[in-house]
Amino acid sequence: MMLPELREEVFEANLEVVRKGLVLYTFGNASGIDRGAGLVVIKPTGVPYDGMTPADLVIVDLQGEIIEGGMRPSSDLATHLVLYNAFPIGGIVHTHSRAATAFAQAQRAIPCFGTTHADYFYGPIPVTAPMTADEIRINYEENTGRAIARRFQNLDPLQIPAVLVSGHAPFTWGQSAMEAARHAVILEEVAELATRALALNPSSTPIPQPLLDKHFFRKHGAAAYYGQP
Amino acid sequence: MMLPELREEVFEANLEVVRKGLVLYTFGNASGIDRGAGLVVIKPTGVPYDGMTPADLVIVDLQGEIIEGGMRPSSDLATHLVLYNAFPIGGIVHTHSRAATAFAQAQRAIPCFGTTHADYFYGPIPVTAPMTADEIRINYEENTGRAIARRFQNLDPLQIPAVLVSGHAPFTWGQSAMEAARHAVILEEVAELATRALALNPSSTPIPQPLLDKHFFRKHGAAAYYGQP
Amino acid sequence: MMLPELREEVFEANLEVVRKGLVLYTFGNASGIDRGAGLVVIKPTGVPYDGMTPADLVIVDLQGEIIEGGMRPSSDLATHLVLYNAFPIGGIVHTHSRAATAFAQAQRAIPCFGTTHADYFYGPIPVTAPMTADEIRINYEENTGRAIARRFQNLDPLQIPAVLVSGHAPFTWGQSAMEAARHAVILEEVAELATRALALNPSSTPIPQPLLDKHFFRKHGAAAYYGQP
Amino acid sequence: MMLPELREEVFEANLEVVRKGLVLYTFGNASGIDRGAGLVVIKPTGVPYDGMTPADLVIVDLQGEIIEGGMRPSSDLATHLVLYNAFPIGGIVHTHSRAATAFAQAQRAIPCFGTTHADYFYGPIPVTAPMTADEIRINYEENTGRAIARRFQNLDPLQIPAVLVSGHAPFTWGQSAMEAARHAVILEEVAELATRALALNPSSTPIPQPLLDKHFFRKHGAAAYYGQP
Repeated sequence: MMLPELREEVFEANLEVVRKGLVLYTFGNASGIDRGAGLVVIKPTGVPYDGMTPADLVIVDLQGEIIEGGMRPSSDLATHLVLYNAFPIGGIVHTHSRAATAFAQAQRAIPCFGTTHADYFYGPIPVTAPMTADEIRINYEENTGRAIARRFQNLDPLQIPAVLVSGHAPFTWGQSAMEAARHAVILEEVAELATRALALNPSSTPIPQPLLDKHFFRKHGAAAYYGQP
Repeated sequence: MMLPELREEVFEANLEVVRKGLVLYTFGNASGIDRGAGLVVIKPTGVPYDGMTPADLVIVDLQGEIIEGGMRPSSDLATHLVLYNAFPIGGIVHTHSRAATAFAQAQRAIPCFGTTHADYFYGPIPVTAPMTADEIRINYEENTGRAIARRFQNLDPLQIPAVLVSGHAPFTWGQSAMEAARHAVILEEVAELATRALALNPSSTPIPQPLLDKHFFRKHGAAAYYGQP
Repeated sequence: MMLPELREEVFEANLEVVRKGLVLYTFGNASGIDRGAGLVVIKPTGVPYDGMTPADLVIVDLQGEIIEGGMRPSSDLATHLVLYNAFPIGGIVHTHSRAATAFAQAQRAIPCFGTTHADYFYGPIPVTAPMTADEIRINYEENTGRAIARRFQNLDPLQIPAVLVSGHAPFTWGQSAMEAARHAVILEEVAELATRALALNPSSTPIPQPLLDKHFFRKHGAAAYYGQP
Repeated sequence: MMLPELREEVFEANLEVVRKGLVLYTFGNASGIDRGAGLVVIKPTGVPYDGMTPADLVIVDLQGEIIEGGMRPSSDLATHLVLYNAFPIGGIVHTHSRAATAFAQAQRAIPCFGTTHADYFYGPIPVTAPMTADEIRINYEENTGRAIARRFQNLDPLQIPAVLVSGHAPFTWGQSAMEAARHAVILEEVAELATRALALNPSSTPIPQPLLDKHFFRKHGAAAYYGQP
């Protein structure tokens, strides 16, 4: 079996979002990429998590051809492939987690109201523009990926590793599938905190830039000092 | 014991809504029908789920006569029977799940704000008209079924397998009791997402028709491509 | 040890509200009465539920004198005693459960918005009037009971087995301690449903009288037909 | 190994906030102080709770020098040290718990709407003033502690053992690390109740002073009568 370590990690990333309560039934998927081999490991579509094993994951190339695996890959595969081509990332996670999906449905970005958000996302979580009827009818999943990539034309996907697809739900990514899963979990927490802050004060304002800088860069980049060395 | 397989499935459907947190105490019931035999298997009324076995379920004919079983059937039996007569369905589930029941109490339909909804329900979840005092006083449960059937005069119950009974709670249905149970669980999720979207943006608008079409028909009908073949 | 069966039931009632998530730390208490003996069994004050046994409960008479037990009774004992003197009931439960306590804090009655409410409470859940400074300073717990009894001067405590103490939290009661505990659990559910209905529609209206009658009396009184005979 | 009992208690305090659902991943920390030795035991930064043992905790002096321990202390250490110098307390806990953090993000104090709050906090939970850009850029964690201490210039930290840091999250404290942890848990409950009360009635008013006095002082001080002697 090819890429046993990546299979294992993508499997764990799929389980992580289930364990943290972000996934109902089969409403989610995680993938990871081996850049050297040019291969992507992804969850099969519509398969329950109970009883799934790393061997059930599907390996495809960057054109979406199945290289190894007896099942159909996630129906969102084409979205993942566009993002792997557009962004220098190692893993992608898609869920319909409640608080984040509600922002996507309300077509509202998630402002950075606090340091929990600033610790992981360097600014608001953006929403994609609505897709046209033609983009929806033909190559829908691929066009979903393109809508995300367009939204990040002036944003750094490594500094804001999450997006809300308008009327749909969030995608997150990271250096690895596990990091993408953690970002999905933290995005959901951040969305819940923002929902509550807005209920308490509809005029809540984002934290000031120095606080955003402080929290993001004490965890990311050369000057980071959070966590063990 | 008659219909052992249907008993088993209806039993599992009853447990599924309990496991997913939709049912407090005995506030819910599931049934399934054997169309060939003209018999319905349904939960007994007021019996706790702990310790219940498939043998405790009650078998009735389409007139509600008990054919097998030592206990009273669910007090909502007459509602189920009207729906089996009116709709080409195999199973029915009734719960008082929180988010969906709140829409029923607020007498508000659940708009289709996102693709989670569109994946399973082809349009808004309708609310029945309030019943008259006479409909409530005499044959209340049967008239509840009739109010639902009337609400679907111009709707396809297979494309919108759920309804909110005004001031009461949801009923869902499906090809089988288990599908009806899954629809109850997904309806609750969809209702929660809609509640949150409305809190974030009271002017949230339904997703456009092409997106509704895309998501519903990638999971239903001849052109479906979600899940394993 | 006196009243072993009542001890056991009151113990179970205390655990029921913990199991159902209504109690944080020691914020709750249940009691039951033996009318023949004129004795009340009640939880000791400030004792954690883990490791508590029926033998830890305290038995007092209707004047609050300890008859059996090595620990102080609940600090709310005097409230319970006033209610046992005022109402023909067998058990009382007090919690600070979230949704119901929020109504008490907002000083708002819980309207009967749906049949879940009507199945157990024949009308809105009332709020007590605020207590005077003197009522608070001297014999506070006894005066809390009196404020509840006053609020029920024109209400039937057997038809509305719950109250919200203004700025404090709910008390519920029933034929037995276990029924009082179930009423506490259902009150919390009903309060959650009402909170959500009001969020979806601030002008939500109570269900019509015939629907309230139908649901309450299909579960209570001579003509009840819910549940097994 | 130094201070084995304090290590054990601080370890338990760290676990308590995890068990009660206040902590996602590593978003929290607890510490305790031995006043005689002038030493503080604190959680290491960025270390998961699963598999952590009391031996992993770090011991520092009041200048923040590591006295014992192989890992970096919590990145919030400097905040804890300022508070130990400013307040006569034995333990500190920091979490990003949902309801309380939302108040911090909305920059709103938590009013005392009910007796659950009054039982533990003698008045509203205050919010710190926003920090200046300079305070954020240099010695941020120390300045966070100073902002808290400034906010308590006219408040008694033993009567209000909690604060909301503007745009960030709560800190709580107590006679011991375990008491600080319980205060963190109760603060979260109180914040949730206040959120719900405000949703039901945006003009909710704090409870009157006599009720606040009654509840706080029946649990604290010489005249307390709640709990076992």
